[in-house]
Amino acid sequence: MVWDQQEIQLRARERGYHLVTDEVLEALEEHIAPLRVGLLHLFIRHTSASLTLNENASSDVRGDFRRHLDRMVPEDAPYWKHTVEGPDDMPAHIKASLMGSGLLLPIGDGELRLGTWQGIYLCEHRNSGGPRRLVATLVGERA
Amino acid sequence: MVWDQQEIQLRARERGYHLVTDEVLEALEEHIAPLRVGLLHLFIRHTSASLTLNENASSDVRGDFRRHLDRMVPEDAPYWKHTVEGPDDMPAHIKASLMGSGLLLPIGDGELRLGTWQGIYLCEHRNSGGPRRLVATLVGERA
Amino acid sequence: MVWDQQEIQLRARERGYHLVTDEVLEALEEHIAPLRVGLLHLFIRHTSASLTLNENASSDVRGDFRRHLDRMVPEDAPYWKHTVEGPDDMPAHIKASLMGSGLLLPIGDGELRLGTWQGIYLCEHRNSGGPRRLVATLVGERA
Repeated sequence: MVWDQQEIQLRARERGYHLVTDEVLEALEEHIAPLRVGLLHLFIRHTSASLTLNENASSDVRGDFRRHLDRMVPEDAPYWKHTVEGPDDMPAHIKASLMGSGLLLPIGDGELRLGTWQGIYLCEHRNSGGPRRLVATLVGERA
Repeated sequence: MVWDQQEIQLRARERGYHLVTDEVLEALEEHIAPLRVGLLHLFIRHTSASLTLNENASSDVRGDFRRHLDRMVPEDAPYWKHTVEGPDDMPAHIKASLMGSGLLLPIGDGELRLGTWQGIYLCEHRNSGGPRRLVATLVGERA
Repeated sequence: MVWDQQEIQLRARERGYHLVTDEVLEALEEHIAPLRVGLLHLFIRHTSASLTLNENASSDVRGDFRRHLDRMVPEDAPYWKHTVEGPDDMPAHIKASLMGSGLLLPIGDGELRLGTWQGIYLCEHRNSGGPRRLVATLVGERA
């Protein structure tokens, strides 16, 4: 039985949806490789950024995520009360909960068992969110 | 300590929200039964279908999910750029992230500890998505 | 290796978004404290209430969640068919799936490794939802 917990810091990115699979795997590959079966939990310690899985090929998909979410949760809604931190703040909180703060990914034979088209997205909902901290928790059984 | 990982293939379904609790349990019942306490992780290896828990009795609830989500993420939005795979594709990606790619379910005394009204939904967001592959990972302690 | 499963009942709350971090921690603190590394799974056994993480300071944030979600999933949509349990019922089901039925939280050195601003929200989507039952499953390694 293996338990492992790592902190990962993702570099600051502009507002939008960003493919970070490689950045995450680079940090965790050697921790995932020894496991015959297990789970990787990725957790973002923020309330205006989130993690999701989606299509890993076309950058248009990530652009469409931004265009759509910005309309689903608009900055200029007349009912916002929490506006002290700027017009991008409150929509960022709601988008963060819609997308979710964590991902749980199956590990099999030393690899993440993602589908062919699945990639890890960092969803940066603020205009200037800064670097984002993740806690990665691995649990599993050695090969 | 028990670790167990199974692949489940759900048969192709039409676009919409489908109750698949029985199909999932049939595949996993004998793996869940020996566990005194544990967790079942269901993970869908696709980016235009998803899993959620919701009401397991009325088919109108599933119909209303479809009617509402089809309006929340419409096919004819003028801002879509990723349109090469058809008008149902980009909305399917966004719906998939809104609903989520995985479910983690508590196991107690050899059974899933779902609430009375909770059932597992396969959310099929494509018109012709085909069969969908799940990875089921179980971890727990034997009775 | 420690496995632990607890039931927590959250007292009835009015429709809206409620910070319940303290109530949850009070019930689980002594179970979390012994773990060097681990995971806490919180699972709500209902289909019209949900759990999410978000900003733990300003009550305006919680109010804005309600104001926005009530518009994103309106009670008076002309296409609802599942209306027998009242106009708040079907929107509650959809909001529950958008926010999600569970949270998985990393444990490190005997504490939840939440970010500074992260708190646990009970999202009560019904007008009179009553008390809500959670299953808390902890797994980890002792210090």
